[in-house]
Formats: sequence, structure tokens, C-alpha cells
Amino acid sequence: MSSSAIQYPASGTIPQGPLPFSPVTQVGNMLFVSGQASTDEKGAIVGDTFEGEFRRTMENVRRVLQAAGSDLDKVVRVCGYVRDAADVAQYNQLYREYFKEPFPARTTLTNCLPEIIRFEIDCIAVVD
Amino acid sequence: MSSSAIQYPASGTIPQGPLPFSPVTQVGNMLFVSGQASTDEKGAIVGDTFEGEFRRTMENVRRVLQAAGSDLDKVVRVCGYVRDAADVAQYNQLYREYFKEPFPARTTLTNCLPEIIRFEIDCIAVVD
Amino acid sequence: MSSSAIQYPASGTIPQGPLPFSPVTQVGNMLFVSGQASTDEKGAIVGDTFEGEFRRTMENVRRVLQAAGSDLDKVVRVCGYVRDAADVAQYNQLYREYFKEPFPARTTLTNCLPEIIRFEIDCIAVVD
Repeated sequence: MSSSAIQYPASGTIPQGPLPFSPVTQVGNMLFVSGQASTDEKGAIVGDTFEGEFRRTMENVRRVLQAAGSDLDKVVRVCGYVRDAADVAQYNQLYREYFKEPFPARTTLTNCLPEIIRFEIDCIAVVD
Repeated sequence: MSSSAIQYPASGTIPQGPLPFSPVTQVGNMLFVSGQASTDEKGAIVGDTFEGEFRRTMENVRRVLQAAGSDLDKVVRVCGYVRDAADVAQYNQLYREYFKEPFPARTTLTNCLPEIIRFEIDCIAVVD
Repeated sequence: MSSSAIQYPASGTIPQGPLPFSPVTQVGNMLFVSGQASTDEKGAIVGDTFEGEFRRTMENVRRVLQAAGSDLDKVVRVCGYVRDAADVAQYNQLYREYFKEPFPARTTLTNCLPEIIRFEIDCIAVVD
């Protein structure tokens, strides 16, 4: 039995995937979005170019945020995981299509993903 | 002198280990648990199989949460660090013994631990 | 248009660098500091020994926190990224010059930075 202080705002719209995590949890007005990757609506990984994986991933982030009553412009803090450091420049370029000034705080890490995905991202957002 | 907004709720029950971090800090009703690994009560690493390290680590997480008046079912957000990507499947299986639906939000990273440990985990939880 | 719940407290004093992130964002009394590295005031990386990079990085963290009305003694949670595991012992030693008991919660990761930097750190802090 979880705490009444924790809400699971997307549980009605985003189905529970095969792995043991909720897409997003909420405490007060803060949302914690799970690491999103290039997956289809059933949670199966869709391999692609870096750009393809990045765009599919970001649409998943947007979908989860909107299901929780938030959106990309309400993100406070991002952690982006770029598997291959060679893709970081493209990451920074594409990122600007999804996030606009004033930007969220951000940390970018490399080399810390398994071979099956090129990109992953998680974030903290607010809901009004 | 730290801010009065920050509490150190386990400082009376979990001894300060050899490394410069508190096991858990608190702001409002939110707890920030430091990266836990397979260590004994003095903070020395206990090497083991992945399963052994995982279970010892999770007992450390539980002990820290309970010392702060919380528990595993009040965790909001997990970051799990699996050193070897080959252990991720077992990680997901064992994880379900400690966390139940509705699950916390979660991100899993690989390859980002030193050779001396196979698993590390940190989390954000609430205290009622 | 971002949410009115999010503030950008250092935007008047810390210039926007070349990369798409704000140095720090704020929700309520909590600050989210972006990953800081050994950079000059324009955001260009300054390569150095581990100690040199660590000290320059920590001065950047301090500068961002102070610009937001906080400071190192109001940090709740740290994530430290040490590129080479061999530098972790020195990291723990130098860290004690910047953070004092009671320490923030902390997680330390290795091997997850690109070749161009030896150290990165992000944190969550409070502002009174």
C-alpha cells in the first residue's frame, strides 16, 4: 500500500508496460517521469538512427507529461543519456526543437546505456 | 551551517560511514536517499553475486527509509545502476520482490559503476 | 510559455551559455542545478588535472547557487560523475573541502562522461 502523498496521474491513459515502473509519479505539484526511450505504445524498443530514436523518445515524454496534465514547457529538470558521445552534438541540436528558452536545468551523460538503445531521458516537471 | 529547511532524519540511527554523504536528507515531506550498495553496517563493500549484492543493497535502502519514517512502498522515484548490462534481466525480476504496483518512476543505467560493485540504487521517497 | 510555478533565479546574473540549459531552475524552495563542469564564464571547457577540474567545477556550482540565493551548505542531494574510477579517492578527499557535515545525500557514478571532461556534478538545494 503506497502513501496517499504519491499519485500515479497517467495510470488511466498510459498502460503499464512490461517493466516494473510507472511512467510518471506525482508528489504535490511535482511530476517524476521515468526514463523514456524509443519504444512503441506497448513498451517494445524501436531501434533507429539517433535522430529517429530521439524523436520517438521525445514524443513518449510528451505523451506521458500530457497524460499527467503537464507538458514539455513545464519541465524543470532533465537528465539526458546519450549512449555514444559522438551523438552529443546532434542531441544538443535536436533538443532545441522540443525545449525552448527559458530551458530546464539539465545534465547529460554518455556511455551508460545498454547496446539496445541510443538515447534515454528522464525529467522532473510541474503540473499547475 | 546548513539550512533549517534540510533535515537529516536517519542521523541518530544510521551511523555516518567512511564517505562524505548522509544516508538520507529531507525537505518537507520528501526524502533523498543516497546511492546504496552492497555494504555492511560500517559501510564496507561486501562483494557477491548480482543477486546477493542486489538483496543486500535493497535491505540497506529499506533500513535507511525506515530510519527516516518511510518505507519501500513510499518511494516515488528510483534510479538503478546495473554495472553489467547482462544483469538487467535479473535486476527487473528481483526488483519485483521489493517494489509492488503501483511502481515508482524509474530510470536504469548500465556501465557507470566502478569494478568493485555490481549494483547501486538511489531514490526519492515521501514521509507521511 | 513555461509554467509560472517554475522560476529561473540566476538568469539575471549567470549568462546563458552555448548549450540549451538554464544553470538552475526553482520550484517552491527547491533549486535544481544543471550539471556543472570545469568551464570558464562563457561555458567553454577548461581541461586540467582532476583536482584542477574539480575545483573549477565546484566554484561554478557555488556561483550558480549564490546567484539563486543559496549556497553549498544548503545542498540536499548531489550526484557526482567521476570519469575515471581511479580518481574517486581524490574526489572523496577534495569533496570534504566544499561540503561539511551534515553532508548532503550523494550518488557517485563513473565512466559516464565524454573524454573532454574528468568531472561533472549536479545537485538539488534549498533556498530559504
